[in-house]
Amino acid sequence: MTYRFPVKSIRQLLEASHGTDAPQVTVNGWVRTVRTQKQRAFVQVADGSNPQGIQAVVSDPEMVKGLSTGASVRLQGSLVKSIGGNQAMELKASAITLLGASDPEKYPLHKAKLPLEHLRDHFHLRSRTRTFTAMWKLRNSAMQGFHEFFQSNDFIHVNTPIFTTNDCEGAGESFRVMTPESLANQSTATGTLKQQHQQHQQIKKDEFFDLPVSLTVSSQLHLEAMNAALPRVYTMGPAFRAEKSLSTRHLAEFWMLEAEAAFLTNLDDLLDLLEASVKATTSRVVAASADDLSVLAALPLATTGTSSHRTKEETQKLILSLSEAGPAFHRITYTEAIKILQSCGKTWTHPVDSWGASLQSEHERYLAEEYFKAPVFVTDYPASEKPFYMLDSADSEGNRGIHGGPTVACVDLLVPGIGEVAGGSLREHRLDGIQRKIQEKKMDMKGLDWYMDLRRYGAVPHGGFGLGFERYLMALSGMGNVRDVIPMPRWFGHCKY
Amino acid sequence: MTYRFPVKSIRQLLEASHGTDAPQVTVNGWVRTVRTQKQRAFVQVADGSNPQGIQAVVSDPEMVKGLSTGASVRLQGSLVKSIGGNQAMELKASAITLLGASDPEKYPLHKAKLPLEHLRDHFHLRSRTRTFTAMWKLRNSAMQGFHEFFQSNDFIHVNTPIFTTNDCEGAGESFRVMTPESLANQSTATGTLKQQHQQHQQIKKDEFFDLPVSLTVSSQLHLEAMNAALPRVYTMGPAFRAEKSLSTRHLAEFWMLEAEAAFLTNLDDLLDLLEASVKATTSRVVAASADDLSVLAALPLATTGTSSHRTKEETQKLILSLSEAGPAFHRITYTEAIKILQSCGKTWTHPVDSWGASLQSEHERYLAEEYFKAPVFVTDYPASEKPFYMLDSADSEGNRGIHGGPTVACVDLLVPGIGEVAGGSLREHRLDGIQRKIQEKKMDMKGLDWYMDLRRYGAVPHGGFGLGFERYLMALSGMGNVRDVIPMPRWFGHCKY
Repeated sequence: MTYRFPVKSIRQLLEASHGTDAPQVTVNGWVRTVRTQKQRAFVQVADGSNPQGIQAVVSDPEMVKGLSTGASVRLQGSLVKSIGGNQAMELKASAITLLGASDPEKYPLHKAKLPLEHLRDHFHLRSRTRTFTAMWKLRNSAMQGFHEFFQSNDFIHVNTPIFTTNDCEGAGESFRVMTPESLANQSTATGTLKQQHQQHQQIKKDEFFDLPVSLTVSSQLHLEAMNAALPRVYTMGPAFRAEKSLSTRHLAEFWMLEAEAAFLTNLDDLLDLLEASVKATTSRVVAASADDLSVLAALPLATTGTSSHRTKEETQKLILSLSEAGPAFHRITYTEAIKILQSCGKTWTHPVDSWGASLQSEHERYLAEEYFKAPVFVTDYPASEKPFYMLDSADSEGNRGIHGGPTVACVDLLVPGIGEVAGGSLREHRLDGIQRKIQEKKMDMKGLDWYMDLRRYGAVPHGGFGLGFERYLMALSGMGNVRDVIPMPRWFGHCKY
Repeated sequence: MTYRFPVKSIRQLLEASHGTDAPQVTVNGWVRTVRTQKQRAFVQVADGSNPQGIQAVVSDPEMVKGLSTGASVRLQGSLVKSIGGNQAMELKASAITLLGASDPEKYPLHKAKLPLEHLRDHFHLRSRTRTFTAMWKLRNSAMQGFHEFFQSNDFIHVNTPIFTTNDCEGAGESFRVMTPESLANQSTATGTLKQQHQQHQQIKKDEFFDLPVSLTVSSQLHLEAMNAALPRVYTMGPAFRAEKSLSTRHLAEFWMLEAEAAFLTNLDDLLDLLEASVKATTSRVVAASADDLSVLAALPLATTGTSSHRTKEETQKLILSLSEAGPAFHRITYTEAIKILQSCGKTWTHPVDSWGASLQSEHERYLAEEYFKAPVFVTDYPASEKPFYMLDSADSEGNRGIHGGPTVACVDLLVPGIGEVAGGSLREHRLDGIQRKIQEKKMDMKGLDWYMDLRRYGAVPHGGFGLGFERYLMALSGMGNVRDVIPMPRWFGHCKY
């Protein structure tokens, strides 16, 4: 049984015409431009289904009265080969119905070529522009790309919870969830979630849940619980960070792809999975969304305002390097990265004095943008720099002690112009190992007993990664500000609509 | 470039063997049962890739020492045709590696056939059971089904925001988002979100956002903004309701499929879209997940504990009626529904005295379960019963006034055994119409100016619907409690992990 949506899009109409004159059609869309001559008029109408929309030729200029940029219209007429050179087919319009007017004095997007900064004042309308129509279709294509990759490799998509009573990485930058009633009762409940848990017996009870609840900062621990039964799982869902950042790369609400795979014993297997998922998805986007990539590539550099000042050519090179057509991603260890950074002759704001130094943004960008000029995996960071759940790196005989080695079996994916896009690790799956790590990090075991259970009952070697979906979209689109790759961005001080 | 996951699942190994003896293979999984005889032992191992797993035959009973239900193992051996009748192929195991033990005295899922209620005490482990493995695969299949339907009909998946400064339906049952700092400063900020907005000038400022922020209860208004530029959009995302409900059909955090389509002028077109999306998805699930449906169908009625006491046959009939193989859904108006309810001779807890009465759960269930014994669309409810954004029903000439008619062009989809699964409407797209409705409902216009903009600049007729994904999964799975169709349910008083 095949369903057909009752309204045809401009792209569908053009495709159905096969480039030859077609009988009566109906076009629905929004007016981009109106040009009136003495004997006739031209109306450019778009509906987002293709970048250019369609040009309607009207023999009577009276018919376009009341039409202006942004107005919605229904046009009837016939598709004919275009005499002008800008399009193959045009619409010879015989009737125009104005569905919704748009006052040109007030419509905020009346002018062509508005800067992205101006459009950020009108999130609810900016999707009308060629740029953002292309951006949202690219986003859709990339998201479907990840689903296709994981589904075709027998991964199960699971919905991990948004509400949680643990804070995963212990960063303390999580949002708390309240109800009006609990807010009224909760005036003394402050501090990190962990402190609130500890205070919980003393303070007034939360009125809705049995414990203080926050929004997830990462689905990893919950995904591990699913992975302890289903060997291949992934999730694409929202995550939240209460970081007071106004940077071009941070959002308070963002989307993450997270995957977790059981029975993996080598870090390289995890890198292969991450690399393959990125490459398959990028190749899908290149094949399915060439039109949208072109629209975005045509944006002037000053408009996209990338922090790295990427040129059009650099963006195309980056897309190639992230796709299956490009070479394999470079793979270096943290130790090798330190040697490169120490011997390259650069002066760093954050000195790389010794092994153990944190890799800062300037170092990550140098490695990806200047040294390799390509995506690079950096693995095996110092254990002290990473969270408690990471498995130690294997020694030369492939063994991993439980008493804590200097490095852990982890990876960061660094991409030119963006920095860190994804990160992952093998997970410490042994009960004694994870307990020791929790003690070393001086973490509170309370609330993590269920996570210990995953190590008590049929634990398996496993690993996983998280990819910042918006960061990845910045790489594909060439957009320099993360606020331009998500429809309604939320960041420090800003939550509109 | 084809990526291959480095570990083969049991299903993949069985498929690759084509039912004939296969050379050395490696099986990874969790032990379901161990039986030891004098001369040999049998270990049933599963990895979620097929319902039955695989039986390993071990010639030396010493090899299964330390194995018990729930332990994780790696087995090596060869696939051979099974002599026993329960499976086509079995594993002649030559080596067994215990990856993670599982103390049978402590493992909470040690016994076979545990009731669902017991498993709800162990959300982090219940995925190990045949039942929940099947449930999560069904969930995955259904979610992919909706994506496939909408993608193949040129709908764009968009991510609508989770954080919002409006409460959509004005129900006041939304969760508030705070940071530890804002909590400390916010002790006087109580009441509904709207009251808080009004108080906002007087009380201390929220420390993170510029306005009080809550979690979305519905993506509809935001989806309409996207739909004002892209004529076909949908989203699958989480939604939140702070309802103090302990019912078997309510969660505080749930998933919703929401679709919005522009240029729709007839309610029947919206019903066609909703019906087609449900039928295409159900048919996909029937075809792709027959194994998992069988596992769930085999659950005893007492175990699933459905509120409607659906038998296995009733669930199968329901699945058929939701699929393309079944007849079209019934379509009646609210007015027709009232006539049926008044003349059927039933005594109602909530009397149906006159036109305008609310349809309660007992009425909805009678219509779907007893009268039609099939899914039924009920349309054109009284305007007073429905939210402000719904377009009036058309009169006999197809006209819709802006001065408020008795009914609105809306629909509820009622399903036997579940009740309301989806609801939608045509939206009032005319500025004067929506302003009038907002005034009539005595709503605060403040904060909705962006929504008015969608009517000011190129408004188009449009409509959409929302489908409760978990309700739909209850129909497919036969599960009687919504807590059993989402991995980690959150409801009033309960948020674990």
